[in-house]
Amino acid sequence: MHRERIRQPSLLDKVVSAEEAAAHIRDGMTVGMSGFTRAGEAKAVPLALAQRAKTEPLKITLITGASLGNDLDKQLAEAHVLARRIPFQSDPALRKAINAGEVMFVDQHLSETVEMLRTRQMGPVDVAVIEAVAITEQGGIIPTTSVGNSASFAILAEKVIVEINLSQPTLLEGLHDIYIPTRRPVRHPIPVVAPENRVGLPFIPVDPGKIAAIVVTSKLDSSSTVLPPDAETRAIAGHLTELLKHEVKLGRLTETLQPLQAGIGTIANAVMHGLIDSPFRNLTMYSEVLQDSTFDLFDAGKLDFASGSSITLSQAKYQAVLPELARYKPKLVLRPQEISNHPEVIRRLGVIAVNTALEFDIYGNINSTHVGGTQMMNGIGGSGDFARNAFLSVFVTKSVAKNGAISSVVPMVSHVDHTEHDVDIVVTEQGLADLRGLAPRERAKLIIANCAHPDYRDALADYHERALARGGHTPHLIEEALGWHAALRERGTMRRG
Amino acid sequence: MHRERIRQPSLLDKVVSAEEAAAHIRDGMTVGMSGFTRAGEAKAVPLALAQRAKTEPLKITLITGASLGNDLDKQLAEAHVLARRIPFQSDPALRKAINAGEVMFVDQHLSETVEMLRTRQMGPVDVAVIEAVAITEQGGIIPTTSVGNSASFAILAEKVIVEINLSQPTLLEGLHDIYIPTRRPVRHPIPVVAPENRVGLPFIPVDPGKIAAIVVTSKLDSSSTVLPPDAETRAIAGHLTELLKHEVKLGRLTETLQPLQAGIGTIANAVMHGLIDSPFRNLTMYSEVLQDSTFDLFDAGKLDFASGSSITLSQAKYQAVLPELARYKPKLVLRPQEISNHPEVIRRLGVIAVNTALEFDIYGNINSTHVGGTQMMNGIGGSGDFARNAFLSVFVTKSVAKNGAISSVVPMVSHVDHTEHDVDIVVTEQGLADLRGLAPRERAKLIIANCAHPDYRDALADYHERALARGGHTPHLIEEALGWHAALRERGTMRRG
Repeated sequence: MHRERIRQPSLLDKVVSAEEAAAHIRDGMTVGMSGFTRAGEAKAVPLALAQRAKTEPLKITLITGASLGNDLDKQLAEAHVLARRIPFQSDPALRKAINAGEVMFVDQHLSETVEMLRTRQMGPVDVAVIEAVAITEQGGIIPTTSVGNSASFAILAEKVIVEINLSQPTLLEGLHDIYIPTRRPVRHPIPVVAPENRVGLPFIPVDPGKIAAIVVTSKLDSSSTVLPPDAETRAIAGHLTELLKHEVKLGRLTETLQPLQAGIGTIANAVMHGLIDSPFRNLTMYSEVLQDSTFDLFDAGKLDFASGSSITLSQAKYQAVLPELARYKPKLVLRPQEISNHPEVIRRLGVIAVNTALEFDIYGNINSTHVGGTQMMNGIGGSGDFARNAFLSVFVTKSVAKNGAISSVVPMVSHVDHTEHDVDIVVTEQGLADLRGLAPRERAKLIIANCAHPDYRDALADYHERALARGGHTPHLIEEALGWHAALRERGTMRRG
Repeated sequence: MHRERIRQPSLLDKVVSAEEAAAHIRDGMTVGMSGFTRAGEAKAVPLALAQRAKTEPLKITLITGASLGNDLDKQLAEAHVLARRIPFQSDPALRKAINAGEVMFVDQHLSETVEMLRTRQMGPVDVAVIEAVAITEQGGIIPTTSVGNSASFAILAEKVIVEINLSQPTLLEGLHDIYIPTRRPVRHPIPVVAPENRVGLPFIPVDPGKIAAIVVTSKLDSSSTVLPPDAETRAIAGHLTELLKHEVKLGRLTETLQPLQAGIGTIANAVMHGLIDSPFRNLTMYSEVLQDSTFDLFDAGKLDFASGSSITLSQAKYQAVLPELARYKPKLVLRPQEISNHPEVIRRLGVIAVNTALEFDIYGNINSTHVGGTQMMNGIGGSGDFARNAFLSVFVTKSVAKNGAISSVVPMVSHVDHTEHDVDIVVTEQGLADLRGLAPRERAKLIIANCAHPDYRDALADYHERALARGGHTPHLIEEALGWHAALRERGTMRRG
């Protein structure tokens, strides 16, 4: 069966076992692997590496698109294969190793990684390992459920290992649009002016001579871990829908809105889901991960087109979508994450960007990554690419966590991923604060009144009032600003003693 | 004499006094004025407003390109004309009013202001006041020493007041390149692919019917306040030049480097000046403010072309440049700040961006704006537009301030304007830390060893070691992280007691 998928005959004798392929990867190397948010990762070679590390010294720098599925980051971390990991992860075991200082994690804007590799500010990439549905007659690699950084990895690497995954349907061919920015000094504009534009090739062009090994696999992608909407995420979606309706009423948006982006995860997915019961129509997405809600919006007749870098679905949604893939395909495109997340295109299109905050402060600064200012959760991912360049930059979170022990609205965030300059709207289940055109003192009043949980509202107002008495453009009691986080660390709660 | 400069005859009878022109501006209005970093601001109408506010209630929202010269921000602030000020300022009196909460200051990325106005997320602009060298036969406005946001102000405003400044030489005509992004839904790529590209008109196109008044003035721009290089700024320039030479040696840059940007101010100016005695050649600039160093580099034969949004010079340099303007003109272009600072163009060109930090922390986060986390200095300006999208994002500062009472390298910055994700290189006179591809723990070691002042190095290392013992991706002692700032506030110094 794999012979039909390797259409360049000279490559057929490159088919080897995962262990043989993995032998191309040696201690100290930098490896670029496919995989973006649990979709389309190489599945066999990483496992072979984890296995080999049990009997010989093997440490690598692993660069991917984003997080890997199938517990691969866990197995690589537990086998101590990872010296350095770039640019995103979401695995509990790897997170532990990162926070213990065992793995050097470089938490990067997802659009920037391959630009740094291309300009040799990082790298070089010794080996690329790319999951594919097929290899074309010319040796072009057809990716599977994600593009991520795979195209540039394959183009820049000295050697390429391809994993042909027989479980990934060949119908995926034609879904991808591989565009690589031209070389400086004269780099041309990226010609995407609408989400549906196809501007590149449907495969990754590589010299077949660089393909060092081909492994045949059949393991499925992991299902997404997104939870269904609950009362609070529905309330968040409701607040945001009301705002968008108001923007339409003011004539600042039409009922087709502008291209939508939603970050990974339960809350952003719920917000998109909330648009099903809205008056908006003929929507488009220019996003990174296409989740269940994308297909729910297609099925509801609300969405005309979706551009992303990966498709990551729950098991139930995957089983519903797969047989209908031919029907969805004309409405979908998967791009390199450099293009799905490119500042140039996001700003041009005027994207409405919805991303999840871990916490935000009364002045509108956002922490997306660090629990208590120190412990890495997942990474910034694409949220910065979108928030900075969006038409409307929205951050969502529930107002409290850990049964109310943690307020997501704090006097000062313990780590800043998105500054006050990059945030237009913050939303919790309590309500929404529209920060556009406001000074910090005005933002604080709105955020405390509209977004904070009632259990913490008075304490925030008290902090802000005492800070106001001291003055300043952004009033703070600097010796107390991170006191809520210190209390959490010492007493396990931000609640007053 | 002004009749030669107003080439559309129907407009000649619009010439009035500043007071009469200012009468178009009424209490509560939003006014867009020319002026970018002390260059090309409207000079007469603002003064008339400050005067009028003595006898009647008059408060406005004032939006400019950036800071104003001729003490205008001071006079407007002291006359209590400013209810709201957007997007940048650098005046001590206005700063005081902002920090006292009397003026609501919206500190914005300089590329974003007119995008928010165009999409009506801010505004509307009632009146635009634009300094010009002339008005063309068709009613087009030819700006003076800055473009800033003037083009969009004039296009979007209901009424336009033009200040024809007879002291601004008519030779400035032809220097400007006015390009306005096309309207969504189909916005086209900005066609700038090299600093020298001209892609727009040499004047601001407006309907002459909107020109409500013309005022004739003759006051000069203020001189820049940039200090000449000293031993420390020369050391900073030296470290950066060494880095760039190393990049050339590694083949990551050529001797022509890539287009350069330098933030406003003494240190960034000194860094550019340092390139005179470097092996680099045929340099170009794609920057916002063209300062003395731009012309020094021209004169040294090092610089081929400079693109900016304004020209701001010291008095001596102005007197040297003015008679030679015809010679410099073919090597210069002034653009709207939306284009000079546009993420799309900056990323495409691969700009090397050098901006000034107020302080940075051991993990590479930058504070550009807030003294002690609360008091606004000037604003973020264009530093974020450049730092985020640059090929190489460099921040420079002296390692100590206030005779050593303040360390510019701290455990945690008291306000974040540029996150760790957006910073490649930090430099003080002590040395340089190259943060590319490094995890936070690695960055801290480098920053403490290379950039911190010897007086503070041990205290920083001690903090970092104690934080490391607690673990985390970005180790911090959260209860102590801002302690240096608290000490400064209480005891007037960050030095240990």
